[in-house]
This record gives sequence, structure tokens and C-alpha cells, in this order.
Amino acid sequence: MTMKTKYPIGILGATGMVGQRYIQLLENHPWFEIVWLAASDRSSGKTYGEAAKWRLDTPLPDRIAHMTVSEADPRGAPKIIFASVDAAIAREMEPKFAEAGCAVLSNSSAFRMTPNVPLVIPEINADHLHLIEEQPWRKQSGGYMVTNPNCSTIGLVMALKPIEERFGLEQIFVTTMQAVSGAGYPGVASMDILGNVVPFIGSEEEKMEAETLKLLGKLEGHAVTPLAARITAHCNRVAVEDGHTECVSIKTVKPATREEILAAWAEYKPLAGRDLPFAPEQPVQFAPQNDRPQPRLDRNRGRGMAVTVGRLRPCGLLDWKFVALSHNTVRGAAGATILNAELLASQGKLDR
Amino acid sequence: MTMKTKYPIGILGATGMVGQRYIQLLENHPWFEIVWLAASDRSSGKTYGEAAKWRLDTPLPDRIAHMTVSEADPRGAPKIIFASVDAAIAREMEPKFAEAGCAVLSNSSAFRMTPNVPLVIPEINADHLHLIEEQPWRKQSGGYMVTNPNCSTIGLVMALKPIEERFGLEQIFVTTMQAVSGAGYPGVASMDILGNVVPFIGSEEEKMEAETLKLLGKLEGHAVTPLAARITAHCNRVAVEDGHTECVSIKTVKPATREEILAAWAEYKPLAGRDLPFAPEQPVQFAPQNDRPQPRLDRNRGRGMAVTVGRLRPCGLLDWKFVALSHNTVRGAAGATILNAELLASQGKLDR
Amino acid sequence: MTMKTKYPIGILGATGMVGQRYIQLLENHPWFEIVWLAASDRSSGKTYGEAAKWRLDTPLPDRIAHMTVSEADPRGAPKIIFASVDAAIAREMEPKFAEAGCAVLSNSSAFRMTPNVPLVIPEINADHLHLIEEQPWRKQSGGYMVTNPNCSTIGLVMALKPIEERFGLEQIFVTTMQAVSGAGYPGVASMDILGNVVPFIGSEEEKMEAETLKLLGKLEGHAVTPLAARITAHCNRVAVEDGHTECVSIKTVKPATREEILAAWAEYKPLAGRDLPFAPEQPVQFAPQNDRPQPRLDRNRGRGMAVTVGRLRPCGLLDWKFVALSHNTVRGAAGATILNAELLASQGKLDR
Amino acid sequence: MTMKTKYPIGILGATGMVGQRYIQLLENHPWFEIVWLAASDRSSGKTYGEAAKWRLDTPLPDRIAHMTVSEADPRGAPKIIFASVDAAIAREMEPKFAEAGCAVLSNSSAFRMTPNVPLVIPEINADHLHLIEEQPWRKQSGGYMVTNPNCSTIGLVMALKPIEERFGLEQIFVTTMQAVSGAGYPGVASMDILGNVVPFIGSEEEKMEAETLKLLGKLEGHAVTPLAARITAHCNRVAVEDGHTECVSIKTVKPATREEILAAWAEYKPLAGRDLPFAPEQPVQFAPQNDRPQPRLDRNRGRGMAVTVGRLRPCGLLDWKFVALSHNTVRGAAGATILNAELLASQGKLDR
Repeated sequence: MTMKTKYPIGILGATGMVGQRYIQLLENHPWFEIVWLAASDRSSGKTYGEAAKWRLDTPLPDRIAHMTVSEADPRGAPKIIFASVDAAIAREMEPKFAEAGCAVLSNSSAFRMTPNVPLVIPEINADHLHLIEEQPWRKQSGGYMVTNPNCSTIGLVMALKPIEERFGLEQIFVTTMQAVSGAGYPGVASMDILGNVVPFIGSEEEKMEAETLKLLGKLEGHAVTPLAARITAHCNRVAVEDGHTECVSIKTVKPATREEILAAWAEYKPLAGRDLPFAPEQPVQFAPQNDRPQPRLDRNRGRGMAVTVGRLRPCGLLDWKFVALSHNTVRGAAGATILNAELLASQGKLDR
Repeated sequence: MTMKTKYPIGILGATGMVGQRYIQLLENHPWFEIVWLAASDRSSGKTYGEAAKWRLDTPLPDRIAHMTVSEADPRGAPKIIFASVDAAIAREMEPKFAEAGCAVLSNSSAFRMTPNVPLVIPEINADHLHLIEEQPWRKQSGGYMVTNPNCSTIGLVMALKPIEERFGLEQIFVTTMQAVSGAGYPGVASMDILGNVVPFIGSEEEKMEAETLKLLGKLEGHAVTPLAARITAHCNRVAVEDGHTECVSIKTVKPATREEILAAWAEYKPLAGRDLPFAPEQPVQFAPQNDRPQPRLDRNRGRGMAVTVGRLRPCGLLDWKFVALSHNTVRGAAGATILNAELLASQGKLDR
Repeated sequence: MTMKTKYPIGILGATGMVGQRYIQLLENHPWFEIVWLAASDRSSGKTYGEAAKWRLDTPLPDRIAHMTVSEADPRGAPKIIFASVDAAIAREMEPKFAEAGCAVLSNSSAFRMTPNVPLVIPEINADHLHLIEEQPWRKQSGGYMVTNPNCSTIGLVMALKPIEERFGLEQIFVTTMQAVSGAGYPGVASMDILGNVVPFIGSEEEKMEAETLKLLGKLEGHAVTPLAARITAHCNRVAVEDGHTECVSIKTVKPATREEILAAWAEYKPLAGRDLPFAPEQPVQFAPQNDRPQPRLDRNRGRGMAVTVGRLRPCGLLDWKFVALSHNTVRGAAGATILNAELLASQGKLDR
Repeated sequence: MTMKTKYPIGILGATGMVGQRYIQLLENHPWFEIVWLAASDRSSGKTYGEAAKWRLDTPLPDRIAHMTVSEADPRGAPKIIFASVDAAIAREMEPKFAEAGCAVLSNSSAFRMTPNVPLVIPEINADHLHLIEEQPWRKQSGGYMVTNPNCSTIGLVMALKPIEERFGLEQIFVTTMQAVSGAGYPGVASMDILGNVVPFIGSEEEKMEAETLKLLGKLEGHAVTPLAARITAHCNRVAVEDGHTECVSIKTVKPATREEILAAWAEYKPLAGRDLPFAPEQPVQFAPQNDRPQPRLDRNRGRGMAVTVGRLRPCGLLDWKFVALSHNTVRGAAGATILNAELLASQGKLDR
């Protein structure tokens, strides 16, 4: 893919944690260029450098620091919007941008489960993108909405898909140990998490359970039929900065040996040859050590876009158990939106 | 129970983390008095104050600090031994003490699954203590061996027993998030756990699965028939000082409503009226808040001897899911040994 | 001191972290009884159990949970008020309560440096309490205001006073490593402190420097002449739940040997014989180990009311250096107010 | 500098934390190539992959994983040795390698204060390298020894040098908050540091004080005359993975304004134009925000080779106070050795 000029990108929710990751990850992106930043009314009119409390460990790019934060209004916004705002705000705003003709690529939970909105991970269910043609805005203004999953869902689904594809899945059990960055900033109070575990994250279990089945579901006609598996999630917050760790047990439809599952993971390369800049070469990586994956050591594999699995062993209750790990603000949020955008660009579905 | 003189107690493994907890918890104990401390050869001959790196947040009692650490040899030891040493050492030493006529109350894993050794939690299976009569030493010297479970097992079993008793249990799923103190001192390297999760603890899953079924099993004839349930455990280490948090899903034999399970927990008071000093008034305490139990806030309930449960809700896969929490070095180790000793004392099975 | 009925106490800022500590520490207090709780408008009218997010590891007392939170208005309030609210709010409210005849014992910074308001630590400068007679309200309504220092100041001053008294002090250098509980709840974001140090706490260095000199100053006529020493503070936030650690270097006026300083600390017992319930028997405790004091191990000495010092050694720049540690929400806040109240009660300056 | 073939490098202490950093940082180094790895007897003969517990968050390079660990013996070793072993071992081994003709670039403390051994930071005192000519081995075999400072010293000295050069320094006060990685692996026990501060690191204060004055000293004749300043250090361990934070107060010889100090830092570029691959473009970077530098956010500046300073403000005791931060295992250890080697290579003092 050669291109003369980059796609102009706008970011809705630019000052939040995921907004900051968009900025960090899009610096020097070969296809995309940030031209518009919007945040809450409190921020608009200020320079981004003034409005945002930059919390990442790479410097805030100078060009971005000097950009003026716009109002969250489609007028003046570019045709491609990366959005990461609270669900309540997303519910109100994202349709306005789609209506105005924008491709809204959203990390928010507001519309993920809406029947005509695709919930997509490029390696998992790229075909679900077809749902944008079911959206009213697509016909009217050309605008549409595509969502990426919750940060805890992505690691699970990427670990499950290669298995589901070959052996089917009947039952899924998952317990998460999630990083604090998943709650945004200021998010989790230090008094709540230092030397502690909080065994509750609002709506997280419900999201994980529903999104997983939609992502692993089949596009049939005008909607996705979710995977007919049973699933349960226990979600916990732990004292980790970045990286969600998940303990998973599964029951497959057809029996699978350990070697077959390892092979399914190793051979899973659905984007091979598509040359999407953010696609990890090896999306699911198996760590052979008996105490891995670990968030500090494995979250950055594939520049934060790979999911690491390990400890595959028989389960006393279902068939197999293992551990999955993914970087929650890269693979699980900002990187997910960017990869969706790259996929859409490669399909000619983004306008400059 | 009135008593003129206290029972003299010896501690094997006195300088370790659990050894220190024995010392802390036995200070001012109404029935027991430490008279003998043993540790590795490196320590013997030194005063305890020199030999141990005291890591607890209450002062090392002066009397103990000045006691001389003995060799780990039954000669010179009192008739009651609290033992917490590595399994390999326990395997060799504990029988020697039992043979010499001691009541060995062990926190070590070495003999927990041995058929004629009782694995006991007083509130759960006090009747299993009868197995000591099956031990060869009992007849010869009067000595015997009683074990308490692994720190991660206790919290689980105490939360399960009230349910099992009323409704039966068919399937048990548990994921643990365990405190670093469970690994002793120095134990877990700070480089391994700061900002991290280690999804592996050697042999822990196997212990939890086997011990749980033995504890919930029935004493039949000369041995315990383990509970005929299926169980699977995922064990993780997290950056918490004290307190193991466990996410549990269960399938009962008979259907149980939420209210029935809450009632089973609330009404579970098997030691009521026995007046054991370390027995918590309410062994299983339900926390009604949606984000509890949490290790920092709930581990000290019942002076560290109660188990806190919370978040009881339907499970998408089995019947119910909930969170259980217990203090791993009090309820899960030193306090467990002490309570076993109190129970034995109340039954007239300890000698002065 | 015998008393028929306890003093009725009101708490202003009852739902905050220090407010919660007042409640925890006053449970079963022999002299004081909480009868009135006030917090922000948002909370008033609710029960305390509904209004407060209880964050301590002992249970919220039932009686308190069911009390209704009042408006922060002197009408209906008892004659003794423990106050811990933001400085801006304190500046407006505390005088109203004093004017209405209340003894306002404040943990807020608003009036600490006001010339006619005593800033008091009972062990250090009980005589400064005389300043209440300089307050206009005292004459009009009998009301007055007494403050206790900032959490980081107390540990420093208690370690310094015994030295200052015997040898004088010319120069004081202090670097703090402060616990997150000092910032209240939610306070420090977990994203800011996990695996991190924040080398800045707003206004903390200024407060520490000024308060220290006032506390060590002399009451002369109608005001306190601050100690004529030079002082500098570096204040940092670290990933500790409770307990401020401080590295101190000092230059004395008269030379002092190591033994003399140790003796000054050991013999410092200014409240001896006064039988104040919260007064630690040994207010400054020396830890002989080379790696102490440490917050996790030493903060609870004297039920959180003692200051622990350690590592006394020559300083390459000034005369001596050492480490001091105190529990920031007990000795450094709620316990400080309570001890001030006990002192006032013992002097007959509190009304029922 | 063009070069046909890279310099072959051997690593002594290859399995330790700093050894691992050498391997990580030297991957793809334009000048150096690892050809030899040595560690303790326990490791020799194994492949590096088997012998080392790799603890970094980038993958262990395949080529290195398959290299066989050698005995720590000069026979068979290349001419350039990067060494990071315990002082006691270094004291015995490093001279053997120098005697055998190797350039020994050491991170160990054993010989740092030896008069004829240069203790060098390229940006600070490159001229001290001349001391190698004073070493007996240099004449005999061509071998020599060069050391880099302790991890806590480097950040301090790099922040001080630009000031010392322009205004002189009379007094230096420093309190450190040091990361656990500085203690190696397993190093600090998690029980010691979670929710805690340890206000003691063995010999650290002595090293910091002595090394700082030697680094800032003048090469005169056959030895270095240390800077004639007074210095005192308080060293603490905190719950941070990487990055040492230091609170510094200084008294200069000539008065300096805030602007003059900022200018001294900004303009300090002593290696400019030398094109050493690991030299940071801006060695001392000022962070203007009032709560910076922070280890998590600033340790990776200049790929971990820059020192970040901030919070420059007047000191109540000396003249100025500020905060300095550096990455302790990159700038403070492995990167320091590598930069020394690059400097020596650029001076023609390394042999292939």
C-alpha cells in the first residue's frame, strides 16, 4: 500500500489515558496523522499540552502539545474519528459524528453490542465489518461506526479463537487480574489497590461475557449470531500498571490434544500478507516457561499487540486450562482501534 | 476449661514466617506457653533474637528473644510440637518427634495426604482427628501427627463446607490471588512481584485440589473417603503482603437459592459453645458491599481467623460464583495449627 | 481522672480518611463519645453508613453506621468539635464553631500558623495551649481553637524535641517519604504511585518548615517566637499505605555524643504520670537494627502514637543523621487531635 | 567512525541483572558484539538460556540463548571484558583478566576507589582514563581496568557536574529513593518492600559519598585529587522496579541564579560531536513540571542514558535544592560500562 498523503485522524477523548495512547502510538504512523483533538468542554480552547496531564513514559510530541483542543463537534472534524470516551458520552456523541459522515472507530462500550455495529478484532472477525452497511448513516452520509472490544475481552478472545476455529468451544471460564490503567486516570485510588486486590470492576464481567460470544459469533444475514457457548467471568483489579492477566479454562466441542492446541496458536496468522503496520507478526505467542506469561515481562510482545499464552495444562473440570496476557491499553484499547482503522484503510473503506 | 498450668509448647521451624506467627499469636495464650524453639543447624545455640529476622509488626517478645534455639531433636523437646518446616525436612523429622511421644501439629505439606494422618480444620472435620488412633506411634509412645491444610485451601474449604453440608457439591472452580507472605521469607523476589502477577506457585494447584476433597470427605473406617466432586484450581501470586483472595464457582447437588447459601454461611457455627480461644465467633462472614472482600480491609476479621465471603451471584457456567478471603499466615497457617491444638486440648488429647 | 459521663464529641469532616480514624480510635474511648457527625452537604441527611466509604480494616461500629450525618452548622453541635476538613473549608467554618462556643480541635492547616492559635503536640509544647486565652471567642462565648500539626511535621518534631531541649538545634535537614493515606481518599491515583515516587506534595515543604519552628518555639507574651534554626524539607510520596519515613540531618548548638542523643530520646517522657489514654508510654522509641525504622514494621508502635527513630550516625555535612517514622493518620492526624483533647480535658478546659 | 568488524566482547557475570542488561543493550550495537559469556561455576557449561533466569521485558536474543556459558577464566576470553560481579569476586578475578591483557570495564565496586584505577563517566571526567597508564598490567600485557560508578552515584554526579564546573560546589546533601533492581536478583525480598521503605542499603552511603568526590575530582599527576566538598548521603530502598530518585541540596562556591543553573544543565554537552552510540544527545534534561522527575515517567529519557532533573528551588539551609532521576540499571550500570567502552574505542584504546 503506497500512499501520497496520510489519512487525517481526529481523536475524541484525546486527554484520557486511551487518548494519550492514540497519540503515542500514532506518532510516525505511516498511514495516519492526527489533525484534530477533542475533549471535554473544560479542555477545549486550550493547547493539548495545557489540557492533558500526560502520563506516558515517552515524551508528548511537540506538534501535539501545541495543537488546540477542539470542541467535540463534528463541524471541523476530519472524516476519521478515533473515539475513547465514557459510555454515556459516547452514546450521545458518536452517532452525531457518524451522521455527519465520519468513520467513527470507537473504543467505548456504548454501541459494542448494538446489532448493526460491528465489534471487531481484525485477526478474529474481520468479516463482521460488513455490518457497517446495515447502518443508516452509511447510506445517508457515508459515515459509520466500528467498535473494538473491552480491554479484558481482547486477550481472552485472541487466545480462544484459534482453538474455537479448529475444535469448537462449549464452555469458557475466565478469571481476570486487571491492571489499573484500564480504569483511566485518576481511576483507581492508590488507597484501594496498594497491597490489595479489588474483586470487582463495574459491568466488566457482563461485558466480557457478552462481547466474547459476539466476537466469536457468525455474521449471518444482517446480524451476528453469538457463539453458542456458556461463559462466566470473574473480574479483579490488581496492583499492576499495565497488562491484564487471565486464567482460562475451556471445554472444546471436539477433543484436542495439547500439541494440537499449541499448533492452533502457533499457526494462527490470519492477517499474514496484509501488511497492516500495527498487526503483530505472531498474534498469539506461547511462553514455554512454567511461570509465564507475566504482565511486566510479556505485555510488550509484538510492540504490545501480541497476546501471550502459557501454562497450558489439563483442567480438572473442563478440558484445558491456561493463562493469557495482553497489554490492556495497547492491544486492549488504542492499538485495537488503530488496527481496525488499518484494516478498513486496506479495504478502501476510509476517506481522506 | 480451667487449668492450673499451661501446656508447654515447642516450635519446629521457629525462625520462619509461620514460626514467627506462632510466637506472635501464642503470646498471652491462655492455654499454651512456648518453652522450646528449634530451627536449622545454622540457628541452634544462638538466642532467638540473634537467629531470627523478625518480620512482624508487633515487637518480638523479650522472653522469646532471649530463649536459646535448640537443635531439632526430640530429646529435650516438650510433648507438644507445632511444626512449620519445608516438606522435605518435615518428611524426615516429624515422624521422629511422633515416635518419641510428641503430639506433632504440623503446618507442613509432607503428611497431609497420608491416609492415617488427619488433615483437619476444627470447624470443618473435627471428627477426622480420630485417625490419630490409626497411627503406629500412638500405640507405642502415645505420639501422633495432625496436619492443617495449605494456606490457600483453608479459605476455600471454610467457604464451601456450609454449602456442601446443606446442598452437596459436584463441581468446584477456584482461582487464587495469593499474598507473598505465603512463600515465606525471603520467598518471592521483589523483582518478580512489583507491578506484576506470577501465574504459578509450585505444587499449589495440586495441593489445593487434593486437600479440599480430603477435608470435605467422610471418615469411613480407617481412612477418609474424599468428597466425590470435581475441582480445578488456578493459583497466582500477587503484590499483596497478607491475605489470599479466591474467586470461586460451584455447582451444588441440590439447587440452592442465594438466600439459602447466605443462610448456610451465617448459621455455620460448629464450634459454638466449645470456648476455644482462637475460634472465631462467626467463622464465615459475608460482606454485603459489591467490591468486597478485599485483603487489606477484611483479612483481620475475627482476629485473622474468620473467612470473609462476598459477591455471591449466579455463574454462567456452574450455579453460583463468589469471592472468599482469608488471612494466609493466621487462619491459613499458624492460627490453624493453634486451633487444632486447642481442639485436641479440649478433647483431652494433649499431655502436659 | 474519674468521670461520670463521657464528653460528647462532634466530628467535622466525618466521612474523610481522618474522620474515619477519629471514629475508629474513639470507639471505646474512656473519656470521649461521638454524638454528632457532619460532612459535606452531599452527605448530610444520610446515615453515616450510607454516606461514608469506610476504608479501615476494623469494622465500622454499628452505632456510628446508623447515626445521621448532620449539616456542618454549629446549631445542634456539641461543645467539642474534632475537625479535619480541607483548609479552604476550615478557614470558613472553624471560626463559626469557635464563635458559637465550641472547643474546635483541628487537624486542618488553615489556622496552624495564626499567631493566637496554638499549634500543639502534648509531649512537645503543651504550654502553647495558653494561646487560646488570646482568642476573641474565648472571652465571648468560651469557644476556642487548637490545632495539631501536619502529618509529616509530627514525626520530625517528636524526634527533634528531646535533642533540642538538651543541646539546641541550629540546622535541620529532612527528606520525607510519605504514605498515600496522607492525601486522603481517593487522593493519590494508583497510576501515579505504583512502581513510582512523586517528588512533590503541594505546600507540604512549606508547612513542615514553618510548623516545625513554631512547635519548637517559645511562648513569649501573646505569641510564639519560632525556634531560630534553619530548616529545609524535601517531600516525596511513595507507594506505602500508612507511615511517613523521614531522613533527618541536624546540627546542634552544643555538641552531643551518640550516647547523649540516645539518652535524650530514651528519657523523653514529658506526659509521664498524666494518664492520658492515648499518650504512648515511650513517645520516641529507638530501633537498634541497622535497617529500621520501616513503615510496615514500626508504624504501630505505641498503638500508632509513638515515633520510632533509628540509624543514628554522624553526618558528613551537619552533626548527626537518623531516620524517623510515624503513623501519619494516627500519630500524625486523628490521634494527635485526640491527644490534644485529652490534654485539654485533664486541664479542665473542655466542657461537657 | 567506520569499522569493518565489531569488537568482540566478553561478559563476566552474564546471568545477573546487569549482565542481562549488557546483553539487552548490546543487541544490534554498531561497534560491539558479544562472543563470550561467563558466570559462576554453577552455570558454566550450560547454554545461557538454561543458566539465566531472564528478567527483562524484551526477548532474550536467540543467538545468546544458545551460547555456552564459559568458566570465568581469561583463557579463551576476548580482549574486552564487561564485568558486573560481586565485589568480593571482582577483587579476585578482575586483576587476572587485566593481567592477561584484557581491557576490563567493570561495574563492580571493588576497584573504584583504587588510586590507579579510573572511575569514569564519559560526560564528567573522560580525562581520568589516563590513569590506566599507571596500571602495572598496561605495561606488561596491555591489559587495564576502568570502572564506572555505583548506580546511585551516577545520577547525582551528572546533575552536579554542570553546576560544579561553572560555580564550584562546597556542600552536597542527597537522599536517595532507590529501585529494587539495583540490588540484583533475587535481591530485595518482596516481604521487605511491598508497602514499605527500607532506610538502609549496605555500604551505599559510603560509596556515594566517596565516588562522587573522586568523579568530580581533578587528575593531578598520578592520581585524582577528590573534590574538596563536604557531602552526606541518606540511602533508601523503595517499591520501584527501575529508576533511582534523589533529593539534592547544594551550596555553590560562587553564587548562581536559578537561570544560571538551568543554563548550566541545558548547555552541558561534553560529548557533542563524538558520535558515541550510547551517548544521550542531552545528558541532563530539565523537567519543568512541578512534580517531576518521576521514575516511571522519566527513567527512559535518552534511551535510559539521560538524567532528568526538576524542582529547582531555593534551599532553606544550603543554596539550591532539586530532584534528580536516572535509570539505575541502564545509565547507572550496564549503559555506563558500554559508554565507557565506546569512549575508549573512540580513543583507539580497545583492541579487537
